Amino acid sequence: MNNSDLPCRSAGVCFDSEGRAEISLWAPHASQAELYLVSQNAYLSLQSHSRGFWHLTTKELKPGGEYFFRLNGGKHLPDPASLSQPEGIYGPSQAIDLRGFQWQDQDWKNPNLQDYIIYELHTGTFTSQGTFAGIEQKLDYLVELGITAIEIMPVSQFAGERNWGYDGVFPFCVQNSYGSATGLQQLVDACHKKGLAVILDVVYNHVGPEGNILAEFGPYFTEKYSTPWGNAINFDDAWCDAVRQYFIQNALMWFRDFHIDALRLDAVHAIKDFSPVHILKEIRQQADELEKQSGRRHYMIVELDLNDDLYITPTAQGGYGMEGQWIDEFHHALRVTSGQEKIGYYSDFDGITSLAKAYTDAYVYDGQYSEHRKKTFGARAKTRDGKQFVVFSQNHDQVGNRMLGERTSELVSFEMQKLLAGAVFVSPYLPMLFMGEEYAETNRFQYFISHTDAQLVQMVRQGRKKEFGDFHNDEQVPDPAGAETFENSKLQWKLPDQGDHKIMLDFYKRLIAIRKSYASLRNLNRDDVRVLQVNAEDGTLILFRSCLGEQVICLMNFSDQPKTISL
Amino acid sequence: MNNSDLPCRSAGVCFDSEGRAEISLWAPHASQAELYLVSQNAYLSLQSHSRGFWHLTTKELKPGGEYFFRLNGGKHLPDPASLSQPEGIYGPSQAIDLRGFQWQDQDWKNPNLQDYIIYELHTGTFTSQGTFAGIEQKLDYLVELGITAIEIMPVSQFAGERNWGYDGVFPFCVQNSYGSATGLQQLVDACHKKGLAVILDVVYNHVGPEGNILAEFGPYFTEKYSTPWGNAINFDDAWCDAVRQYFIQNALMWFRDFHIDALRLDAVHAIKDFSPVHILKEIRQQADELEKQSGRRHYMIVELDLNDDLYITPTAQGGYGMEGQWIDEFHHALRVTSGQEKIGYYSDFDGITSLAKAYTDAYVYDGQYSEHRKKTFGARAKTRDGKQFVVFSQNHDQVGNRMLGERTSELVSFEMQKLLAGAVFVSPYLPMLFMGEEYAETNRFQYFISHTDAQLVQMVRQGRKKEFGDFHNDEQVPDPAGAETFENSKLQWKLPDQGDHKIMLDFYKRLIAIRKSYASLRNLNRDDVRVLQVNAEDGTLILFRSCLGEQVICLMNFSDQPKTISL
Repeated sequence: MNNSDLPCRSAGVCFDSEGRAEISLWAPHASQAELYLVSQNAYLSLQSHSRGFWHLTTKELKPGGEYFFRLNGGKHLPDPASLSQPEGIYGPSQAIDLRGFQWQDQDWKNPNLQDYIIYELHTGTFTSQGTFAGIEQKLDYLVELGITAIEIMPVSQFAGERNWGYDGVFPFCVQNSYGSATGLQQLVDACHKKGLAVILDVVYNHVGPEGNILAEFGPYFTEKYSTPWGNAINFDDAWCDAVRQYFIQNALMWFRDFHIDALRLDAVHAIKDFSPVHILKEIRQQADELEKQSGRRHYMIVELDLNDDLYITPTAQGGYGMEGQWIDEFHHALRVTSGQEKIGYYSDFDGITSLAKAYTDAYVYDGQYSEHRKKTFGARAKTRDGKQFVVFSQNHDQVGNRMLGERTSELVSFEMQKLLAGAVFVSPYLPMLFMGEEYAETNRFQYFISHTDAQLVQMVRQGRKKEFGDFHNDEQVPDPAGAETFENSKLQWKLPDQGDHKIMLDFYKRLIAIRKSYASLRNLNRDDVRVLQVNAEDGTLILFRSCLGEQVICLMNFSDQPKTISL
Repeated sequence: MNNSDLPCRSAGVCFDSEGRAEISLWAPHASQAELYLVSQNAYLSLQSHSRGFWHLTTKELKPGGEYFFRLNGGKHLPDPASLSQPEGIYGPSQAIDLRGFQWQDQDWKNPNLQDYIIYELHTGTFTSQGTFAGIEQKLDYLVELGITAIEIMPVSQFAGERNWGYDGVFPFCVQNSYGSATGLQQLVDACHKKGLAVILDVVYNHVGPEGNILAEFGPYFTEKYSTPWGNAINFDDAWCDAVRQYFIQNALMWFRDFHIDALRLDAVHAIKDFSPVHILKEIRQQADELEKQSGRRHYMIVELDLNDDLYITPTAQGGYGMEGQWIDEFHHALRVTSGQEKIGYYSDFDGITSLAKAYTDAYVYDGQYSEHRKKTFGARAKTRDGKQFVVFSQNHDQVGNRMLGERTSELVSFEMQKLLAGAVFVSPYLPMLFMGEEYAETNRFQYFISHTDAQLVQMVRQGRKKEFGDFHNDEQVPDPAGAETFENSKLQWKLPDQGDHKIMLDFYKRLIAIRKSYASLRNLNRDDVRVLQVNAEDGTLILFRSCLGEQVICLMNFSDQPKTISL
């Protein structure tokens, strides 16, 4: 189906087939809403419709045209559903026609989820350019590595030019410094041509601390629930319909207009919704409808700190219908097994016995008391598909949320790095790498921001220092606002060709090739997985994988001594 | 099974078979916990156990003995799980042995839920005595009326002697001015002897504003969620296990030690719990276990403002397993049909077409946009059992939350009162009366409190005035703290024998008898219910009920004119 036949977004500016701008704004408490055209220095009135919506169809605003909204004759405000902020978060919004992109990926088919081998990357630090175009230049490298999907950390417009992405304030707008909307479309198209799927990380649980204009337009937030980032987004309080639509439309936009293959939804445990249809379920249902029209399949993978498989249970069975979730517990168990000190959240994990449980049960805590959480946590994952769980030995959070942002390469031996990688790739789950781990990148990945609000910067600095009560250390916390913190987090692309880095890269390639070549390793039916032996004293574990007649036995020795194992 | 064989509560004071007091206290942040024996003027130390629990077994505290707790050498505090507060909320707790009561109801069997005909009453105003003993004297009257279950508004110890009961601060303690624990046991036993079931209203979503000592002992509340009554009770945050146990034990206590047949759980939409096992589900599961041991059946009926039948779906099907819920929407639709002005929450209801929907679908809002709520509300009730829905033409809230507390008798004509009653009794749901409506009591039922904190009283007075923005009126808001407000809310037991009151009482008796005598009316399978005609202009509705061969056709005319109906 032709993309232009699919329905447009219901928020922001769309262009109809005759080139007219169809403008939709939700501002339920306003008594007047106007569009300000920057180049014409002119105001156009929007008409009030039901339930707080304002509409205008006009030929005055053209693709490329810059505009603001104005409520009740007040100040100029960018569009909460802006697609482009060419001058950043404080500048005007820019009307663009997302349907103008000439897609070349007609033959692309999103792989089955079980075939995903994921490579998480951060656009700003993956390459020296820090752009989508920069990523595109590395696609051959990634294909050769063997991964099948890249996962791009959030790209929604944020304050400044340096940010992990979780401080985005324009959910529909692609960061200008990365290459804006067209740059992302171009990258996805290029990925599809090379056989790579694209996962986009999106944030539906909060909005960044600087430049958040949503509350000026309507009750996007509710005081009913609080989150670590302030009041929760309003998914079930009065006026929530439009807020729900806003995020539903956002998800559909990435699928429809950017050909994104899967969304990774950030921290969905901080989405508080007691509606009879949870917002995630509603997004899934709407995405199902889109799929029927487009013929394309799209996945939703959640970051979830609840160990509750209701989220990944199909909607037909009463669940929220998410295809997959991250399991941080596999990471924690694996890291403690490899020598990580049992501090902070690691204190809940017993090392290799926890790892054995993660291999077979996915959730390590599925009804036990957690000393760290101070409560009984989790329920048994009845869902049997290993493809619903994403595992990793490091990711942006696990690296970057260390005080110094050290990667595994700095923390464990060369051989242990290989074992960590192997442990991930023989798991009956979807493996995920964090950019650079495949060649043992040595640059740290640190926490960086470039807010322009000095007071906020100070708060972030202090917050960062406070956060490391559990993980304290004599070294200084790197300055999150320092440009050097960002620059020092970039990958060093000279390394993959050098010495041990090359050896590690070849090792990863071989691992991925092995994963792909054995039916037993591709078979993610958890019923076929067994831990044959786990020896906490020796630090050894034997994992058994099988598929029909084929059997693979994976021997792991986490100690620094040779061990004898009897099979 | 003998009651004394069932396990005791895990919080507060229990007596073992040798008369020793087994004392259990949860105070996770305390470094020292002591029991203070009032009569001996002596302190005994409790021993610290895991997860914040403190224990002591002693012969020093005997049934009837008064005590306080003391943490870290601080002030004297009553027991958060106190069973008796003979001197009110600020006085000492009193140890009592709940198992000492000599039950006479061995032959009692809780009726099937579909046979419940409920009579809601408030202990303090039902009789001039305002006690359980007072209620007992009226049981013959209630049996003669034909109801099968009384529902007692909350009895947990509250500040002062006048309160609806929703300000209780000792969930395990029965209000001393009502007759304390033994008084309630005696009443339940008497009800069972007369063939009446007993429903107890309990509040698990908040604690009253005066005398709430829970937070002094531990994190009973969480800042994650707010409710209309402040921070939510901590059912899913750190330390929630003990809080969950506290309320689970509370529910089990009413069933086990008071032989309560059903709990009515107040405003469960304000219980915020994102655990994989919702607290209501866990209570149901624990009650199932108790039932296996005791051989007695117990129901849980929730007040729920969510129109989400997940709550009343059996646990085996993934629901929370509640047996029933109130549907206020039936009331609202019925009242608008009978002439109630469409203000406040009534504005959402269209009168007789809404009533017709309530008869067939239970939820009036099951996915439509609600102008009053400013959002799309509810989902279709897939649950087919009419016995899962409790309906009424008035209840304590609908009467008492009017500014002046007028009963229906004051608001609509004598004939309309009969029609309202009839509309309830021919519904395929469980009918509930509010005390006195059966004889058209004329005294109002008003909002009353007797807090001793003057500032709080002032706040309640102001809050009450503010609440009537939607329902304003030239008359003065009655003083909630005035003793006369309480006295004037008492039933006048001379009325049922007089004139129109007697006629109304006889009408109700006849209605109830009819409900009981027709299989079609007892059949609460919603598949057998049809609205044959609804005429909004005429104000007429024809409801069709059937069971096997039998058919009952109910003709309702809400207008003040005779109407001709063709069948």
